[in-house]
Amino acid sequence: MQNKIGKAEIISIGDELLIGQVVNTNASWMAEQLSDSGICLCRIITIGDDPDQLSQALAESISRAQFVLLTGGLGPTADDVTKPALCDFFGTELVFHEPTFKHLEDMFKKRGFQMTERNRQQAWLPEACTPLTNSLGTAPGMWFEKEDSVIVSLPGVPFEMKSLMEQEVLPRFKAIFSDMYYLRKTIMTIGVGESFLADQIKEWESKLPQFLKLAYLPQSGIVRLRLSGRHPDKELLKQTLEEQTQKLLQLIPDLVFGFDDEMPEAAIGRLLVEKQATISTAESCTGGYIAHLFTSIPGSSAYFKGSIVAYDNLVKTKQLDVRPSDLEQYGAVSQQVVEQMAKGVREKLQTTYSLATSGIAGPDGGTEEKPVGTVWIAIAGPDFVRSELFHFGEHRGRTIRRSALTALEMLRKELIM
Amino acid sequence: MQNKIGKAEIISIGDELLIGQVVNTNASWMAEQLSDSGICLCRIITIGDDPDQLSQALAESISRAQFVLLTGGLGPTADDVTKPALCDFFGTELVFHEPTFKHLEDMFKKRGFQMTERNRQQAWLPEACTPLTNSLGTAPGMWFEKEDSVIVSLPGVPFEMKSLMEQEVLPRFKAIFSDMYYLRKTIMTIGVGESFLADQIKEWESKLPQFLKLAYLPQSGIVRLRLSGRHPDKELLKQTLEEQTQKLLQLIPDLVFGFDDEMPEAAIGRLLVEKQATISTAESCTGGYIAHLFTSIPGSSAYFKGSIVAYDNLVKTKQLDVRPSDLEQYGAVSQQVVEQMAKGVREKLQTTYSLATSGIAGPDGGTEEKPVGTVWIAIAGPDFVRSELFHFGEHRGRTIRRSALTALEMLRKELIM
Repeated sequence: MQNKIGKAEIISIGDELLIGQVVNTNASWMAEQLSDSGICLCRIITIGDDPDQLSQALAESISRAQFVLLTGGLGPTADDVTKPALCDFFGTELVFHEPTFKHLEDMFKKRGFQMTERNRQQAWLPEACTPLTNSLGTAPGMWFEKEDSVIVSLPGVPFEMKSLMEQEVLPRFKAIFSDMYYLRKTIMTIGVGESFLADQIKEWESKLPQFLKLAYLPQSGIVRLRLSGRHPDKELLKQTLEEQTQKLLQLIPDLVFGFDDEMPEAAIGRLLVEKQATISTAESCTGGYIAHLFTSIPGSSAYFKGSIVAYDNLVKTKQLDVRPSDLEQYGAVSQQVVEQMAKGVREKLQTTYSLATSGIAGPDGGTEEKPVGTVWIAIAGPDFVRSELFHFGEHRGRTIRRSALTALEMLRKELIM
Repeated sequence: MQNKIGKAEIISIGDELLIGQVVNTNASWMAEQLSDSGICLCRIITIGDDPDQLSQALAESISRAQFVLLTGGLGPTADDVTKPALCDFFGTELVFHEPTFKHLEDMFKKRGFQMTERNRQQAWLPEACTPLTNSLGTAPGMWFEKEDSVIVSLPGVPFEMKSLMEQEVLPRFKAIFSDMYYLRKTIMTIGVGESFLADQIKEWESKLPQFLKLAYLPQSGIVRLRLSGRHPDKELLKQTLEEQTQKLLQLIPDLVFGFDDEMPEAAIGRLLVEKQATISTAESCTGGYIAHLFTSIPGSSAYFKGSIVAYDNLVKTKQLDVRPSDLEQYGAVSQQVVEQMAKGVREKLQTTYSLATSGIAGPDGGTEEKPVGTVWIAIAGPDFVRSELFHFGEHRGRTIRRSALTALEMLRKELIM
């Protein structure tokens, strides 16, 4: 029994997950929250909308883990089987839960929608559970206890699940379990691949103390180095983590752009605010994606002024003042054109810096001289414009993403010079 | 034993999946491929980089499924434990595999990189396996057989895993297993939520033949209706699926924008090509996201000309000819301004249609009169401009996404009129 303590498992329910229709982002989010709370997630089990599978998975998880989280299978539509299966498993039956019904009524009144029969059914809950109020949706969470384990069933709608986790579930888990401290530091790198990075830091890695663990987390152009540890002495853990991070930084200073999952667009936003500088973009092959990255950050209007997405050559000449003769002579994917695009947008939008991209994202449009994946990227500033040529391979989506990340990295390097 | 046939399980390996650092998109992709091949995926098990967990999960999966797919744990970095654990499980040992080494050498030569010791180690493989050549990476796939089950271990790098699945694994699976036919049709809807949709089609749903199954798959503003079935008679299955789809279409003609996972931006691209029409966007609150959606589709340069992302008011007046007096009087988030933005970009970029957005994505910038989530969207065409006001709530990312989808839907409705 002892070895269940502090361990968690997630059971994700839904046929849609097993036919590949929906990516299980709920599980990743919950995993991160559990990890941040010092709870060790040992397994995620994904099963279909099937009562037998659910009972089987529940029995397995309860034998291994103190905390079992279920998501999905609580929506209002007919493909749901979770509640009856839970009743069977816990040997209980559905009863009408007045406070839940009242909450549903209020909710529908406030939104001005009519309550359907399906929604009314959501007020019937297993008698053995403690209902957890879902302030953002119609399906309440359900808290069960069995064989020294806690089993919590949550709706599959991401923002409802998240709100229930944050407001109801995690505080109770933390109250039940507090023993080891868990800390982590993520070092964000860009520019080289996993193997190359591993070779540069292998000596440092081999000397890490036993209670620290390093994970390489590559993700389209970025490699995150996740240094984490669990220890009863919080101060010692904190200090060791900090020391080892500093040692690592000295090994690869040029490759690190930030920490703790701060994405490049957020790190750059911070730098631009510090410098009171502004930015604009002129995008051909990235088609607005750099602008989208900038504007996905709250408060970006302080430094991001706008973009001219010049997919068509006419937009390049008319809106960005690219010389038609250069377009003719060198082609749209050329140093001459991309630098004029950067200068053009910087002047038109009156910003401190600007970025420009022009390339062949594919799958069509490649030539022998300029194959698919060829991308020119330019940066312009108060007294300079410069550009570089890249080859990002044949995958359209990846070329768009890598072009954007590379452009951001050119800007970051400029800002920290 | 009989009941293992045609069933599959996936075991995803990696600590990064259990701390929420990486979303398990590999599993979803594999799930979709298996489903398309008529193989029934019954469970996805996600475990950490731990030999005991791997042995346990393997033993469980082999007892239930004919096909067991492992991903992850084969990369070149030090956090990998899969290969030794597989040797233990299959009672075999690592041997040097000359053809794999040769392939590695060629690969590094071609890319002009130096081979590291870590990479050399990747040529050591369990003797009991049949190696599957990984044409895109350094870690080969490994094919094992045990207790009437096939176990295939694949690298975790998505494009390497995908190429191995498509070229090596799925053809072999299909050759082993061919019995029931599986077909599906996905009906893509936009505009109403899951409950409302369910009520409109519940009578039709209740009369579906036993061998067809309906799943509701909501995803940020879109609900996919997945109608699928398994049957030994392929023709009957096909015909029934088609008939039921037609019946469904007659119930909700206005809500359906496409089929089979064709996203709105792709469906609209097709319509624009058919009409030989072109499109541009003027984006404030969506910050280039609509342009990004359009340009994520291969061939979009045929109809998408460009965008002016006017985050700053100065960009609205200078680049889009919005009247400064209207900006002053009505504010940037107003019908007057958004319609001028649409007209402005359409004229400047010389396109048949244009879309414009102006809103408050938040978290800051809301007022009592125009709270966070207030968005004006306009569409302009050869002889019209019109706009609508929306409220998309307080979540920045979701407001950006819903604004973009709603703008696309306004355009789609215009194109099919």
